[in-house]
Amino acid sequence: MLNRVRSAVAHLVSSGGAPPPRPKSPDLPNSTSAPPAAPPQGPRSPPARAGSGSAAPARTVEARASFSRPTFLQLSPGGLRRADDHAGRAVQSPPDTGRRLPWSTGYAEVINAGKSRHNEDQACCEVVYVEGRRSVSGAPREPSRGQGLCFYYWGLFDGHAGGRAAEMASRLLHRHIREQLKDLVEILQDPSPPPLCLPSTPGAPGSSDSSHLVGPQSCWSSQKEVTHESLVVGAIENAFQFMDEQMARERRGHQVEGGCCALVVVYLLGKVAIIVRNGEIIPMSREFTPETERQRLQMLGFLKPELLGGEFTHLEFPRRVQPKELGQRMLYRDQNMTGWAYKKIELEDLRFPLVCGEGKKARMMATIGVTRGLGDHNLRVCSSTLPIKPFLSSFPEVRVYDLTQYEHCPDDVLVLGTDGLWDVTSDCEVAATVDRVLSAYEPNDPSRYTALAQALVLGARGTPRDRGWRLPNNKLGSGDDISVFVIPLGGPGSYS
Amino acid sequence: MLNRVRSAVAHLVSSGGAPPPRPKSPDLPNSTSAPPAAPPQGPRSPPARAGSGSAAPARTVEARASFSRPTFLQLSPGGLRRADDHAGRAVQSPPDTGRRLPWSTGYAEVINAGKSRHNEDQACCEVVYVEGRRSVSGAPREPSRGQGLCFYYWGLFDGHAGGRAAEMASRLLHRHIREQLKDLVEILQDPSPPPLCLPSTPGAPGSSDSSHLVGPQSCWSSQKEVTHESLVVGAIENAFQFMDEQMARERRGHQVEGGCCALVVVYLLGKVAIIVRNGEIIPMSREFTPETERQRLQMLGFLKPELLGGEFTHLEFPRRVQPKELGQRMLYRDQNMTGWAYKKIELEDLRFPLVCGEGKKARMMATIGVTRGLGDHNLRVCSSTLPIKPFLSSFPEVRVYDLTQYEHCPDDVLVLGTDGLWDVTSDCEVAATVDRVLSAYEPNDPSRYTALAQALVLGARGTPRDRGWRLPNNKLGSGDDISVFVIPLGGPGSYS
Repeated sequence: MLNRVRSAVAHLVSSGGAPPPRPKSPDLPNSTSAPPAAPPQGPRSPPARAGSGSAAPARTVEARASFSRPTFLQLSPGGLRRADDHAGRAVQSPPDTGRRLPWSTGYAEVINAGKSRHNEDQACCEVVYVEGRRSVSGAPREPSRGQGLCFYYWGLFDGHAGGRAAEMASRLLHRHIREQLKDLVEILQDPSPPPLCLPSTPGAPGSSDSSHLVGPQSCWSSQKEVTHESLVVGAIENAFQFMDEQMARERRGHQVEGGCCALVVVYLLGKVAIIVRNGEIIPMSREFTPETERQRLQMLGFLKPELLGGEFTHLEFPRRVQPKELGQRMLYRDQNMTGWAYKKIELEDLRFPLVCGEGKKARMMATIGVTRGLGDHNLRVCSSTLPIKPFLSSFPEVRVYDLTQYEHCPDDVLVLGTDGLWDVTSDCEVAATVDRVLSAYEPNDPSRYTALAQALVLGARGTPRDRGWRLPNNKLGSGDDISVFVIPLGGPGSYS
Repeated sequence: MLNRVRSAVAHLVSSGGAPPPRPKSPDLPNSTSAPPAAPPQGPRSPPARAGSGSAAPARTVEARASFSRPTFLQLSPGGLRRADDHAGRAVQSPPDTGRRLPWSTGYAEVINAGKSRHNEDQACCEVVYVEGRRSVSGAPREPSRGQGLCFYYWGLFDGHAGGRAAEMASRLLHRHIREQLKDLVEILQDPSPPPLCLPSTPGAPGSSDSSHLVGPQSCWSSQKEVTHESLVVGAIENAFQFMDEQMARERRGHQVEGGCCALVVVYLLGKVAIIVRNGEIIPMSREFTPETERQRLQMLGFLKPELLGGEFTHLEFPRRVQPKELGQRMLYRDQNMTGWAYKKIELEDLRFPLVCGEGKKARMMATIGVTRGLGDHNLRVCSSTLPIKPFLSSFPEVRVYDLTQYEHCPDDVLVLGTDGLWDVTSDCEVAATVDRVLSAYEPNDPSRYTALAQALVLGARGTPRDRGWRLPNNKLGSGDDISVFVIPLGGPGSYS
């Protein structure tokens, strides 16, 4: 699997062509959404503040009745009905006449073939302005746009057991990222190493004398060097935690029953941080499944056996052990092993294994096929009160790709897709479609990326034939929701 | 670090030349050690049997007084004294006149410059015959050499806090591997998939009817396929555990105070399983240090805080937190994070961090710089009763390299070395020495690999000058024990 990912990265993010345009000012472009009016609830803040802070996004969700699609699709009531039609499965993209998405990003989506009532994918594409929480050097808190930071943000969210978790995450996760970056606005724009300590009270008045910074110069001789990049990674990592904690607290009000996987791209100061919280095979991501995360799950069950509730064993067997096999020696592996060995079957080995099955059928606690995600705070083992968390983790994997290190041409794109795309499309097929579609358009035609996103969605959906949606090779197309972003990495100068 | 490892692998294990000779019969060659007379103690067997089973190796260790060198060096009492001389630091290799090591393996070693009384490295090179424990198909237990298996084995052991653990491991680890392989003798020689279950009582009489095998054919439809290769990996993984458990049980009798890192190569059925238990940078291995294993250690401390005894915090800070910083916000990262973020300093953050320092100075629990090893069962945190285990793990990492997949030429070698080599020699420098030395010999001259091992040891030791052992560039050479194996991968047809 990892090899496929690598080859996809190599193919889709190849070099060549003109040098990439550098980001200009951090000013907020007026071509996309305005800066969010209200901050999300302060994560881990006192309850009083949390309640009021989160009111705005919560109301937005509630007002949208039973389902919604991304706002950038600008769907009319009639368009919303067509997007929700399982029979037609019309491909949706932002209108040609409206404002383009940042970077001329292409987007297309299609609803599932009846798997669930509504489309449980969600998408978000925003330019987010981060105003410093306060000057860490103690300067007055006057808002000054020139001192803020801007980041570009793309997110795909693949919901399960309902679309509410994906909807909530698509509306709020980038705000949590913004919240986490607020402390860093001044630090990231200062080429010197980050200060080791910040003053204790964010927002407290202070003098403008930067000697108030507890910087490296005042530290012991032996101290680890922390890069600006790792601060951004840490901010994104914590934003996922806070998003998940907010879902746990507010799941009743938002009617969040299920959960979602997330795949997020952040562009900040010349670098793309790619956050992987998903089960798909896509460029620069890897799958989080009961198979790929077996050892993490087994280790957790081994060290905290109470989380298994006497119902599961942390050991893996090639198949379910049967009572008549007691005393025989069967193949197994534990949390430390990559190989297999034989062990004598004892009574507790008859419990259901924490991890079982292979490929698409692999399951954790016999319940769920993904091992990282947001939400699912109500999820229990079937016919049991045993919670799936914390085996299901909300922690992301962050990878950084420095856009300024390569010269990208207009054909270099980053393809983000949900399961619906990758279940039926290989990396090579995606790459071939990229070549075919982009070469049919002028390099400076910004509509080529939307055409590419549509082609990828259509290629995964297929056409109705022989009582199903079928691909040209007569295999079944994806009956799942399908959502695709195509982000040009060296496109028509649209970084700023 | 990993990149250096990868480049080394690519360079030292390049392709070209004639196809490798395939291993012939599993007969035990008479050129090396005879099959071990007594089995090691049955791991996890009842105490009575354990005591008697391990008596033979234990006596051997005791009889050697205060120190020993590998038997294949064939040192006379005078030679042993010279090998133990810190002033001369004479390089030791097997005698030209004696039997060659298997595969014409080269070996060289030198004692430290005074760091410890004796050389705390140990080495082992053996051809090991594995007789099936019993026919898993229930056939009579008649010993039949043709039905056994042979493996080639090379091990380097880098001791710390005394040389006893390295000595014990060098004498016994391959016997534990043999013990673990006994169940697999018949299975590995049968091309069909391994049976899921074995009969309950090893060694119990049975009929020769192979239908007694509980094989895949009798299993449920959904069952994981387990390869022969993963059985060998599992056997090696368990052998390390049993070796460490034996050390724990018998450390008083063997006077084992310290511990050791281990680096082991096993050649079996055309594949080399490379087991990494070491802190060195070498081809196909990676370092296990408080830095590379930070997240494993932090996760263990987070899930089992009682193991930290109220003395340590599982959080990492860039340096020790000072009491006057209480209430400030300092950079930190937890077990889930790869990036850094700020947190408010609380009282428990003042505890010493589980992981601290950088590079060679990185320490776990302020005590030890390696995080995997055998032994150290008595090791406690300085001025404390807190044990270092289980943060210090005896679990190996096993990588498999299929020798038959490449055409190796006589210049393709696998270099194994202890810290003494890699502390002062880069992968590139090793590769240059490989080129220089091997090209000075005929490709079919088997002594070229010993010459290469000697050159590598000499190049790391240097010569006495300006009150120290110095390299040609006047930098300090290694004052540590230095041991090097050079294993030809496509050499003069000496696989069998």
